[in-house]
Amino acid sequence: MKAAHATRAPADAPAAPPPISRYPVPALDALPADIRDRILEVQEKAGFVPNVFITLAHRPDEFRAFFAYHDALMLKDGGLTKAEREMIVVATSSANHCHYCVIAHGAILRIRAKQPLLADQVAVNYLNADLTPRQRAMLDFAVKVAERSHEVSDSDIETLRRDGMTDDEIWDIGAIAALFALSNRMANLMALRPNDEFYTMGRAPK
Amino acid sequence: MKAAHATRAPADAPAAPPPISRYPVPALDALPADIRDRILEVQEKAGFVPNVFITLAHRPDEFRAFFAYHDALMLKDGGLTKAEREMIVVATSSANHCHYCVIAHGAILRIRAKQPLLADQVAVNYLNADLTPRQRAMLDFAVKVAERSHEVSDSDIETLRRDGMTDDEIWDIGAIAALFALSNRMANLMALRPNDEFYTMGRAPK
Amino acid sequence: MKAAHATRAPADAPAAPPPISRYPVPALDALPADIRDRILEVQEKAGFVPNVFITLAHRPDEFRAFFAYHDALMLKDGGLTKAEREMIVVATSSANHCHYCVIAHGAILRIRAKQPLLADQVAVNYLNADLTPRQRAMLDFAVKVAERSHEVSDSDIETLRRDGMTDDEIWDIGAIAALFALSNRMANLMALRPNDEFYTMGRAPK
Amino acid sequence: MKAAHATRAPADAPAAPPPISRYPVPALDALPADIRDRILEVQEKAGFVPNVFITLAHRPDEFRAFFAYHDALMLKDGGLTKAEREMIVVATSSANHCHYCVIAHGAILRIRAKQPLLADQVAVNYLNADLTPRQRAMLDFAVKVAERSHEVSDSDIETLRRDGMTDDEIWDIGAIAALFALSNRMANLMALRPNDEFYTMGRAPK
Amino acid sequence: MKAAHATRAPADAPAAPPPISRYPVPALDALPADIRDRILEVQEKAGFVPNVFITLAHRPDEFRAFFAYHDALMLKDGGLTKAEREMIVVATSSANHCHYCVIAHGAILRIRAKQPLLADQVAVNYLNADLTPRQRAMLDFAVKVAERSHEVSDSDIETLRRDGMTDDEIWDIGAIAALFALSNRMANLMALRPNDEFYTMGRAPK
Amino acid sequence: MKAAHATRAPADAPAAPPPISRYPVPALDALPADIRDRILEVQEKAGFVPNVFITLAHRPDEFRAFFAYHDALMLKDGGLTKAEREMIVVATSSANHCHYCVIAHGAILRIRAKQPLLADQVAVNYLNADLTPRQRAMLDFAVKVAERSHEVSDSDIETLRRDGMTDDEIWDIGAIAALFALSNRMANLMALRPNDEFYTMGRAPK
Repeated sequence: MKAAHATRAPADAPAAPPPISRYPVPALDALPADIRDRILEVQEKAGFVPNVFITLAHRPDEFRAFFAYHDALMLKDGGLTKAEREMIVVATSSANHCHYCVIAHGAILRIRAKQPLLADQVAVNYLNADLTPRQRAMLDFAVKVAERSHEVSDSDIETLRRDGMTDDEIWDIGAIAALFALSNRMANLMALRPNDEFYTMGRAPK
Repeated sequence: MKAAHATRAPADAPAAPPPISRYPVPALDALPADIRDRILEVQEKAGFVPNVFITLAHRPDEFRAFFAYHDALMLKDGGLTKAEREMIVVATSSANHCHYCVIAHGAILRIRAKQPLLADQVAVNYLNADLTPRQRAMLDFAVKVAERSHEVSDSDIETLRRDGMTDDEIWDIGAIAALFALSNRMANLMALRPNDEFYTMGRAPK
Repeated sequence: MKAAHATRAPADAPAAPPPISRYPVPALDALPADIRDRILEVQEKAGFVPNVFITLAHRPDEFRAFFAYHDALMLKDGGLTKAEREMIVVATSSANHCHYCVIAHGAILRIRAKQPLLADQVAVNYLNADLTPRQRAMLDFAVKVAERSHEVSDSDIETLRRDGMTDDEIWDIGAIAALFALSNRMANLMALRPNDEFYTMGRAPK
Repeated sequence: MKAAHATRAPADAPAAPPPISRYPVPALDALPADIRDRILEVQEKAGFVPNVFITLAHRPDEFRAFFAYHDALMLKDGGLTKAEREMIVVATSSANHCHYCVIAHGAILRIRAKQPLLADQVAVNYLNADLTPRQRAMLDFAVKVAERSHEVSDSDIETLRRDGMTDDEIWDIGAIAALFALSNRMANLMALRPNDEFYTMGRAPK
Repeated sequence: MKAAHATRAPADAPAAPPPISRYPVPALDALPADIRDRILEVQEKAGFVPNVFITLAHRPDEFRAFFAYHDALMLKDGGLTKAEREMIVVATSSANHCHYCVIAHGAILRIRAKQPLLADQVAVNYLNADLTPRQRAMLDFAVKVAERSHEVSDSDIETLRRDGMTDDEIWDIGAIAALFALSNRMANLMALRPNDEFYTMGRAPK
Repeated sequence: MKAAHATRAPADAPAAPPPISRYPVPALDALPADIRDRILEVQEKAGFVPNVFITLAHRPDEFRAFFAYHDALMLKDGGLTKAEREMIVVATSSANHCHYCVIAHGAILRIRAKQPLLADQVAVNYLNADLTPRQRAMLDFAVKVAERSHEVSDSDIETLRRDGMTDDEIWDIGAIAALFALSNRMANLMALRPNDEFYTMGRAPK
């Protein structure tokens, strides 16, 4: 970690790019095969390796558990749309001031929702974003789970049901908020840096 | 205001664009000449009329006072660079969750600083942005003025002086934070909507 | 500023009066004519020069913009009464722990409202002050704008309308809270000291 | 309590004075002799009966215990001056937004300290009041006990000792903050109204 | 106090038991007779001397006032049950992170309520504890008095009345919360250590 | 979920035991073999099935990911002791007011640390618990990650290194705080009830 810190350059010394993590970043070919394969797969699809993959691979068992959890919640079929799930990630990651997750999942949200403005709106103040009433109720609950889950009550559940959410969808909202409570803290622990690519992805209107 | 509210469409009804303010938006040619001239001048320069101009013109005297204050702090020569002043705006407007100011001044910051990533970094968590030590000290003080100005002490001033700030620059940091404390609250009162153009300005690296 | 600090005497060394600002205080006859005239005018009327005038004159352009904004909101005819406007100033300045504004505008409130107890009540806890229901709703909204303007919603506006406020009055409440968000931060930045006269003005019952 | 509520008049209906407590206020001659004597004694000395006496007498046993505690801390000889003790009351009662205690003990502080401005300064923002370094350290600790006593640490105690406080004085600071934590909550529970006399007592400079 | 601090041993040096207070602990036979008698009485009943008695006896007058207040609220007949009073103590002491009061009154609550699980539930999150609706309303009000008593309003009182509370019971809820606001701060000031006995008392189900 | 709610009995109707989750609880023999085996294994070892296993099995994929993450951090050899890891869980779960995790991991901490008092101390106020300086520094960092991870800085890392923590241990502290950020939110979402057994485990001194 020392070397990485020594090269953390201030903005007015642009020659040295800042490190992407406080912790050592493994070389791709030194990784276990399953992790390397997963990383090559995402690289194939995205055109680059999102930094969360290569930095979290510093701890292979935690890498595997994290992405298993992620896939179970973010990739499964049915229930919330993929865009709605990303809205939850952006809203709660903004509440936690997580640099990596707001920027990277903001990009994914722009792409999934085909709304180039929505991610920035949700990141700054979801209360004032271009949301449907269902989406607004969804984010109210997600942010409550993120910030004061001990106040979640039966009456919150009833409200969401009246808004048309199924019990499975309510679990998903809470569980995505909970997973990114973990993810945001890990990214902040590592000072995880988003790839430059994320900042511009999906900004052109469809 | 009723009509405006009636057309505030949810995101899944894209035909009707949301209003840019909770309050009536004046027609350009109904405005006093000095205000109309100022608006035409900014339109000439930017290629569009930033919404804060036309919406704040609902109150001509407040429009004049606001932009006089703005120009005194943001356009004057010497001291803080123009990019530094915009960093203060973005950091404090993010602390206040002001949709308009984060998006619009984020765009201006990208252009002024010639760093396409910096505005989003500062908006999410300035503690983790690509800043020089001087910029970091500047934003620490600006956010303190924004959030708990009653705790500003002589020792804060001494710290900034040791970081190389002049007394005039220290005033400027505090005054810009103070002006956008006003601006953010007015924008949130109006539910002021940023122009779509701001979201993409200055994103291409130089 | 060094000299001013050197004379900031502790309370048990009463010989040296504390400075009225952290920043240099200009001599009246060194000021631009319009500012000097404004100051002489207020001195004529009040019998003394309120410290905010002479200290803010350190920056003539900001002085002009601030008082233009102030006059547009605090002196205009119609809408909120002058006493109501001062209640907003005292309630929000107390939320911001602004020494100058609570003491000085507390005095003005006592005079405008002809209620010698109201200013102190509003400063300590407006929730428990001698207010009409309309005044209470007004201060609830003003304090919301002061403390969490990003949560202002259409339903807040509707509530105020039902309480009999016009849309123009609602703007005024929010705008006064916004202007003193600026003013409180400037006063705290300067460590602006209220004139001794303010503490006793208007205390005799009418 | 119903009757009292019925007469709680808004400010614009001055004929009916607001009640001094949410709870029934006993008649002086219906009180136990020791309590009546105490009240007559304070009336003799102050020229009026401070409302906390007559309202708390609704519960005689609590009255006795409260004033026994009060006298043990506020009236005993040695250690903190009487003015310093009142500074602690005003600073912590302001943190708790207690109408009665800020107004009534503000008056007593003015008289004890022979500084007509100090009480209002401490009530608005003690960080910016005319205090000696010892008084400032005293109030920092008192407000910590009032707001987050679970964070009091051995190093706080060491700091106060270095500032010249004895262990007995440190106990007194904490204990006065603790007693008014109780007192403020009882006053807020009762919506206890300060006597009008307190607002003006001690305002003339000595 | 110096000696006590010197022997405050870390957990990995178990030979030296930690002190029970930051302040000197008086010897029983050096105490005034009335205090010694009270302590012997509680020792007779409980089988040990709860540390709050012997440590608070460092200040005899405050000891007498505190226990007079305590007995007036916690031992009187009628109104709230003794178990309900202890619930208020545990819920508000947990909000104040008071080590002594949560552990000691948790034990008393287990015994009074004959519910061995309730005290730990209330200490962690009373919103999720095994409470009747009446008990839940009681704790909502108690915690409001503990944390933001300045927001207590006539409508809170009305709500409790509708839940079946008498005005006297409402006073008791608020007064117990107020007394332990004092008690928690004194315990945190002293770093008062609970007796080991309290941790296990009343845990066997009845 | 309806049925479960209908049987959530208040404390004064003890006949009906409250549900252990807001969500349906699967029957053991309806579960996938790997999950059933894991549950039988823990039952064999503990003598009962901790409720988190059977309730989280409602979502098999999330169950697998959660326990894979748990085992990677809580069961691996080297670095932090098992007792230290449980201290982190109890301190951060208490900050999140998570009923299940404080009670269940409090029991495990008592057993691992062979200190029957430590868990309750850490749950109420870790700042005042019987900790070594290393443990105190560990919990300071863990709670910072739990509550404001965006403020984690290089200087926090340096402080922990000076206290003798390795970089791998620092990761572990942060990662355990992050995992229980997730776990606490899921438990609060489900209103997960701890097994009665946990309340008394490990209370007898060794």
